[in-house]
Amino acid sequence: MNSFGRIFKVTIFGESHGESVGINIDGCPAGLPLTVADFMPDIERRKGGQQKGTTPRKEDDIPIFKSGIFNDKTTGAPLTILFENKNTRSGDYEKQRSVPRPGHADFVAHQKFGGFEDFRGGGHFSGRLTVCLVAAGVIAKKLLATQQSEVAATILEIGGESDLEKGLQKAIDAKDTIGGVVECRVNGLPIGLGEPFFDSVESVLSHAVFAIPAVRGVEFGTGFAAARMFGSAHNDAIEDNTGKTRTNHAGGIVGGITNNNELVFRIAIKPTSSTPKEQTTLNWETGEQEIFSVKGRHDLCIALRVPVVLEAVTAMVMADFYMLQQHIKRII
Amino acid sequence: MNSFGRIFKVTIFGESHGESVGINIDGCPAGLPLTVADFMPDIERRKGGQQKGTTPRKEDDIPIFKSGIFNDKTTGAPLTILFENKNTRSGDYEKQRSVPRPGHADFVAHQKFGGFEDFRGGGHFSGRLTVCLVAAGVIAKKLLATQQSEVAATILEIGGESDLEKGLQKAIDAKDTIGGVVECRVNGLPIGLGEPFFDSVESVLSHAVFAIPAVRGVEFGTGFAAARMFGSAHNDAIEDNTGKTRTNHAGGIVGGITNNNELVFRIAIKPTSSTPKEQTTLNWETGEQEIFSVKGRHDLCIALRVPVVLEAVTAMVMADFYMLQQHIKRII
Amino acid sequence: MNSFGRIFKVTIFGESHGESVGINIDGCPAGLPLTVADFMPDIERRKGGQQKGTTPRKEDDIPIFKSGIFNDKTTGAPLTILFENKNTRSGDYEKQRSVPRPGHADFVAHQKFGGFEDFRGGGHFSGRLTVCLVAAGVIAKKLLATQQSEVAATILEIGGESDLEKGLQKAIDAKDTIGGVVECRVNGLPIGLGEPFFDSVESVLSHAVFAIPAVRGVEFGTGFAAARMFGSAHNDAIEDNTGKTRTNHAGGIVGGITNNNELVFRIAIKPTSSTPKEQTTLNWETGEQEIFSVKGRHDLCIALRVPVVLEAVTAMVMADFYMLQQHIKRII
Amino acid sequence: MNSFGRIFKVTIFGESHGESVGINIDGCPAGLPLTVADFMPDIERRKGGQQKGTTPRKEDDIPIFKSGIFNDKTTGAPLTILFENKNTRSGDYEKQRSVPRPGHADFVAHQKFGGFEDFRGGGHFSGRLTVCLVAAGVIAKKLLATQQSEVAATILEIGGESDLEKGLQKAIDAKDTIGGVVECRVNGLPIGLGEPFFDSVESVLSHAVFAIPAVRGVEFGTGFAAARMFGSAHNDAIEDNTGKTRTNHAGGIVGGITNNNELVFRIAIKPTSSTPKEQTTLNWETGEQEIFSVKGRHDLCIALRVPVVLEAVTAMVMADFYMLQQHIKRII
Repeated sequence: MNSFGRIFKVTIFGESHGESVGINIDGCPAGLPLTVADFMPDIERRKGGQQKGTTPRKEDDIPIFKSGIFNDKTTGAPLTILFENKNTRSGDYEKQRSVPRPGHADFVAHQKFGGFEDFRGGGHFSGRLTVCLVAAGVIAKKLLATQQSEVAATILEIGGESDLEKGLQKAIDAKDTIGGVVECRVNGLPIGLGEPFFDSVESVLSHAVFAIPAVRGVEFGTGFAAARMFGSAHNDAIEDNTGKTRTNHAGGIVGGITNNNELVFRIAIKPTSSTPKEQTTLNWETGEQEIFSVKGRHDLCIALRVPVVLEAVTAMVMADFYMLQQHIKRII
Repeated sequence: MNSFGRIFKVTIFGESHGESVGINIDGCPAGLPLTVADFMPDIERRKGGQQKGTTPRKEDDIPIFKSGIFNDKTTGAPLTILFENKNTRSGDYEKQRSVPRPGHADFVAHQKFGGFEDFRGGGHFSGRLTVCLVAAGVIAKKLLATQQSEVAATILEIGGESDLEKGLQKAIDAKDTIGGVVECRVNGLPIGLGEPFFDSVESVLSHAVFAIPAVRGVEFGTGFAAARMFGSAHNDAIEDNTGKTRTNHAGGIVGGITNNNELVFRIAIKPTSSTPKEQTTLNWETGEQEIFSVKGRHDLCIALRVPVVLEAVTAMVMADFYMLQQHIKRII
Repeated sequence: MNSFGRIFKVTIFGESHGESVGINIDGCPAGLPLTVADFMPDIERRKGGQQKGTTPRKEDDIPIFKSGIFNDKTTGAPLTILFENKNTRSGDYEKQRSVPRPGHADFVAHQKFGGFEDFRGGGHFSGRLTVCLVAAGVIAKKLLATQQSEVAATILEIGGESDLEKGLQKAIDAKDTIGGVVECRVNGLPIGLGEPFFDSVESVLSHAVFAIPAVRGVEFGTGFAAARMFGSAHNDAIEDNTGKTRTNHAGGIVGGITNNNELVFRIAIKPTSSTPKEQTTLNWETGEQEIFSVKGRHDLCIALRVPVVLEAVTAMVMADFYMLQQHIKRII
Repeated sequence: MNSFGRIFKVTIFGESHGESVGINIDGCPAGLPLTVADFMPDIERRKGGQQKGTTPRKEDDIPIFKSGIFNDKTTGAPLTILFENKNTRSGDYEKQRSVPRPGHADFVAHQKFGGFEDFRGGGHFSGRLTVCLVAAGVIAKKLLATQQSEVAATILEIGGESDLEKGLQKAIDAKDTIGGVVECRVNGLPIGLGEPFFDSVESVLSHAVFAIPAVRGVEFGTGFAAARMFGSAHNDAIEDNTGKTRTNHAGGIVGGITNNNELVFRIAIKPTSSTPKEQTTLNWETGEQEIFSVKGRHDLCIALRVPVVLEAVTAMVMADFYMLQQHIKRII
């Protein structure tokens, strides 16, 4: 349930205020060079930090290798990497125990796990675990790079504005939080990755993408706009034997399979649930409504921190497809 | 690769112009009443037929039970159901072999399977296989019904018009095909189905949804519109200890887990690729562009036939979640 | 639950007295030549027939291809093959319903599936389904043959006698049934298949081997005799850089991984449960003991028909390992 | 590849001389009490230590909880437990790099992982990882205990002697190592666990059992002796409606399914590969044979340390079967 992938299999674990969060990766080929330094650029990107609109928890997030690496290279045995939780203050959570934060999983987690869940800071449901995804993505990107394939995500709009500053300002003015749209592109994929039906590239990618907290939608190529197009306008004409097409409305996937054009998709990110505005919520002990307000500072717009996480899950999925693909023609 | 589900596991097989298409279902509980008549209403819905804008292949599509049923009930052993292909005319395909239809998988299938694929009518990539999904859905719906849960999908718009006739007329006037948007709702789900991260309800549902040919996007609750909302407006306030919320922007899922509100999501369907308009495409033998035009009649708008297929994959996924859920609290 | 394999995935289905039994295979590479004639030699071997000590049900067992084959070659899409059940007489089973046959699964099946199981002739538990395994094995053997690898199983002893005629005569004289030991060898496997721990070659092979009804034990290389050996005698000295060893006590597997020596293992087969001798069993309706005797003729020794089934599951497993292996070094 | 289980899913990782070894368990129900003290009895049993014939590495093996536990109870989120490697001396391994130890995986690991494997002390192939299995077993046993089910393994013979002292003395006298046989019994299992064919209890148990290093064979009930029995003698007569049988030649499993009798099976353990005797092996750099002798003290008989490991994997498998079983009847 906390694992994903068929050959390149990633397991994530940990809680927001537990001792650590981390990943286990099974199926990574032997011989891939891997050092702490490889992880730091993407980990820094995730932190946000200097960026307006983000308020990172102050964790240094140095990856601690526990298995699977020897002489700075992967060994073919499972990799385990931990990130320590240092900057946690859990004291306040106990008294807020029966007051679920609006938009968060507190209530459903309590129901599902019978009250045994670690509720501090969202526990296992926390966005803190996206550092695990980012770490898995670093390794997956290195694998894709050996095949000249590259993943890049960018923010398209904040609060409906392509001028991102303007979008953020809306939220600041309203003393509220705001959503956004992020786009991801993958270059250099070979033709033929993916399967018709259940293991289409869209299926597996969207599966991974919705593992990112706050994602509310995904669309490939022209996406929802395709629902308003004529067929003759939407079809991409194949230009030559490489499969390159004149347009790319399909977003690089036909029949569930990569077609040697750029893979393109977008995701919708909801506004940060922890808004500075006062809200009402249930107190499940008293059964009464209570006024709820978020203490401390929070992200104005969680979408700002999503691109590196989106790249990570995309790289995980495409590296796995790539590795699965290997088996197909070799035996005959 | 052609299987889906963890406990309720569905495998689909067959080709458009082969002898048959069919499904195997493993993990269906014993004792569920099941007859041919149970399948016919949804199979008729899929055919379209009388509906303006659809031109069904004339198949009677009577399910043929090959295993797993005894005395009109499931036995607990794997179910196999075939649908014969009777109304096939494959004569013309050979001469069009090297001219991939625009918007179809012909070219990538040829590349992926080295020319060994059954290319007649799209072969294994054909929309013909959605009858398999519908059949699996009939069984899954019966399982959900034992839990007072029900799935229903409706068309929201055709060609951007909520007046569907108007949308279809656009395509007729343009002598072209057109896309649409379909919404799905599930009532009666218990709180607590799904997992944080990789096995979130959104992850698994979207995985299945993109197995339906022609789907280009999926959004849950307010979906892409959430990207333009403020947090205070998007959060759904919990009203009482059942988890019911005042609004349902989340679409019934929080933290990847059902929250006892209606599950709501929408999908975008691209316009039918086989349009009456002339188009250019590659002839991969000559390497030249050719004029391509579709012979015979085709669906004006494939979205018209999608609702019953969408209900089917949704029911498969939610029945599987339901069955997985059983194990969690029992052991202690 | 009725599927096995990670890349080359086999699903079996059907019941002894239902309409048919069959297999679905997903993950078979495209382009493998495959005709009905390829199946007949192994299907004939399974039947026994002329062999003393076997009494086959008279089924012609012609494989009926339902999907995945085009122009006598595999297409890369899932294969479905049916075998019709023609020679069934189910009339008598209803009245014996509450009298479970000693040594058979009748009682546990009834408990597990709540009485909904197809009980005729053992239903889904029947040895009839081994024809499915044999069919999967035919395909797997063809895949292995492309790699110059070959599987062969032989009977080592019947009733403790290496003179097999003598062993069978024991059973004939005693008017009873008898067990046996079968050995399997695989040549031509590359070094490096398998994994340490959970996916060791022994783990996966034994998993598949115990899917064959009547198997009671499995041992690799010197097997149980190794428990009585000194380490210096058991260790196989490596002779050269190919990995060939002077002796082969390990049976071709070290640390769970093939070592470029012949793979060798043996299985124990219990005596046929349906013995001509009278026995007592429970009548679960009356709660009383009853005298039970088998009507008609049965196999004296089921081990006689096991070698081709053992070859089949072994080929399935090793073809799957082979296909998994492909991914490992390619990406870097 | 390093994971096992369908609902109760165990992943192991680590290397003999790396920083740590450990496990991740996904699917453990919430609310199970779990403290360090729960682990110590089985961890002590594995060490051997005081036992004649064992020479444990001096590790304290205190489990370090990294995730999934809160207030001394499981939370339903994935559990991660580490065991630090403190007592390692790796200095000598580099110079022995090209001389594979007879009976060990050094040569195949080198071939499989292209020289990138962590070779120190066997790396990921080391018996050191059985502490991970033991830890998973502790949790699985606690789950089974909630269902009144209990697992116990005992040594049956050493070097062919049921007087174990005598068996060990043989090895001491011969200045060699020796093998043994271990039996495992499980009480209190409900009727109906397991499936016919691929997921038979024997299939899944043997899969897990061969994950234990040095196992060369497994047999259920009368096992290999059944191959020499008559059918009338081997069949177990059912005595009453609970399914209890007069004899238990089947070892508690019929048709792959538990039958409410004691589960009984035995495994063969080869003699410790690291024998004090001098042996020859290949030097893969020179291509020449070399005299090889083991430095330091090693286990006389690895079978002595196996029972607790065998209990562990058995408990893992049966807890998983138990959890899978839950889903079956609930939905209808």
